[in-house]
Amino acid sequence: MASIETNDRLTPRWDATGLITGVVVDAVSKDVLMLAYLNAEALELTQATGFAHFWSRSRGKIWKKGEESGNTLRVVELRIDCDQDALLIIAEPGGPACHTGARNCFYRRVEGDALISG
Amino acid sequence: MASIETNDRLTPRWDATGLITGVVVDAVSKDVLMLAYLNAEALELTQATGFAHFWSRSRGKIWKKGEESGNTLRVVELRIDCDQDALLIIAEPGGPACHTGARNCFYRRVEGDALISG
Repeated sequence: MASIETNDRLTPRWDATGLITGVVVDAVSKDVLMLAYLNAEALELTQATGFAHFWSRSRGKIWKKGEESGNTLRVVELRIDCDQDALLIIAEPGGPACHTGARNCFYRRVEGDALISG
Repeated sequence: MASIETNDRLTPRWDATGLITGVVVDAVSKDVLMLAYLNAEALELTQATGFAHFWSRSRGKIWKKGEESGNTLRVVELRIDCDQDALLIIAEPGGPACHTGARNCFYRRVEGDALISG
């Protein structure tokens, strides 16, 4: 019997709140742009529209990335991890991916307790 | 006053269970290798030893990646995201990063409901 690690059928392992983690990577630069969370509806919308959708835990609603800013994420490829609780979203960003205006959310390097920009 | 998004001091935003998400990227290929979770001790050990440590939610203990398999992750750089609840671990893998033996955990592409290896 195929396990969740070897099967050829998408069977997301939703957490207790119905979410999986999404990691967005730039299709060209391969930079990790952002992390966000998907419920079943966000995953369906992402697949149906070709644009990344997430579940906003703070706002408690479905959210199309870029719906307000215009900085959408056009999906190039989706990949799932071994235990199917993390989705890799390889995408073409329509603009800065971070809500702060940075190209990606990881704009600070950690050095001990210090954070260094760039 | 500097916010969590702009400050220059590491102030991880631990979730209700004391964890942040770690995304491991290969320092050379930039491939996303795996996702795992860190508590404060795992982060301290990662910084002190230069090797990625995580909190295993299933086993309820600290875990040095590769402690059994030998497939360690030597840290090249750590980066934190805007709201400081996700850590990007740029690392040199000592071997296959996935416990399945795959080079990374994202060895299946999602096409509709189907998963395609490679």
